[in-house]
Amino acid sequence: MSSATLDFFYDFASTYSYLAAMRIGRLAEAAGVQVRWKPFLLGPILKAQGYDTSPFNRYPEKGANMWRDMDRLAVRHGLPAVTRPKAFPANALLGARVATALNDACRPSFTQALFRAEFAEGRDIAQRETVREVLAGLGHFCDTALTDAEGTAAKERLRAVTQEAQALGIFGAPSFVTADRDIFWGNDRLEMALEHAVALAGRPRVRHA
Amino acid sequence: MSSATLDFFYDFASTYSYLAAMRIGRLAEAAGVQVRWKPFLLGPILKAQGYDTSPFNRYPEKGANMWRDMDRLAVRHGLPAVTRPKAFPANALLGARVATALNDACRPSFTQALFRAEFAEGRDIAQRETVREVLAGLGHFCDTALTDAEGTAAKERLRAVTQEAQALGIFGAPSFVTADRDIFWGNDRLEMALEHAVALAGRPRVRHA
Repeated sequence: MSSATLDFFYDFASTYSYLAAMRIGRLAEAAGVQVRWKPFLLGPILKAQGYDTSPFNRYPEKGANMWRDMDRLAVRHGLPAVTRPKAFPANALLGARVATALNDACRPSFTQALFRAEFAEGRDIAQRETVREVLAGLGHFCDTALTDAEGTAAKERLRAVTQEAQALGIFGAPSFVTADRDIFWGNDRLEMALEHAVALAGRPRVRHA
Repeated sequence: MSSATLDFFYDFASTYSYLAAMRIGRLAEAAGVQVRWKPFLLGPILKAQGYDTSPFNRYPEKGANMWRDMDRLAVRHGLPAVTRPKAFPANALLGARVATALNDACRPSFTQALFRAEFAEGRDIAQRETVREVLAGLGHFCDTALTDAEGTAAKERLRAVTQEAQALGIFGAPSFVTADRDIFWGNDRLEMALEHAVALAGRPRVRHA
């Protein structure tokens, strides 16, 4: 019997990634699942798959419904009221690089704080100042964190995780990937992904093609 | 205190409408909500909103994931294993007309039986013979039912429900609409829609198991 793990692929521009980021810690702890937080960039993957823009922008009815859904789910999950950022989807490159550069222990709290700035406070995470303030609020030494984030190692690592997501066949965020490479798409599937991760840890591994 | 109602808009070509159709009866009964079953045609609405084809077909990764998700949800909800019909999305016009023509008492059982033929047995519901056999299996006198379905009244009624869905801003199936015209999109939102319907009617909220 191996230990249960789950890869959590998220994009800082994604509203439902926000919900998942705020929920996954407690649920995974309760289920005994170790989560690997994997910030990636969904944009290039979607472009390669033939999408031109976010369906939430392309189809106004779908977009309006998504924000309404977010309002309701925030209440349901005990999160602050959702504030819609002016720029949506945000340019999440800097945030993703910072999250990538931080070590595994710091990544979750930074991720949650940046998502909160974006979707609870409605701030523009593309702004360097927003990212700086979030880092400072968490007690990081901002200059070092930002320098690391824009170094070659972080850029290459973010590119590698994005390529990994693409190779897995990920087409949306958040996506949860279990040890057998099964993809669970969306915040709504977090619980099922955790259940599957637990089930897998108790039996021999079989990989999906 | 009024009685709680919920409008259930579904399309026979939609996989998640199938899941909702199999689940809604029991859940609504437990919650004390009266459901109005409203078959409609999503195709014309999507076309008017700028969609060209089903995203499940346009984006292969998304389509593959949807079927995988269906497999898992069928297990979860105690439904037969999902069989993927060769023609997807199916031409659901005849089925929608028959469901429209049947009276309110017969509509749910026909809806479930036709969905079962499509997604549990993998049959082509565009075929008149499939619809006939489903009707016969439910004890209907098929010729009358099919004649009614292709009469002017049923055609106009189906068009009216489709226009109603469009006017409400529906962009996907299934959609659940509460008395305050709030739209809950997708099988995943059935429980929340029922809760909201109950809250609106002024009753205590649904208890979760």
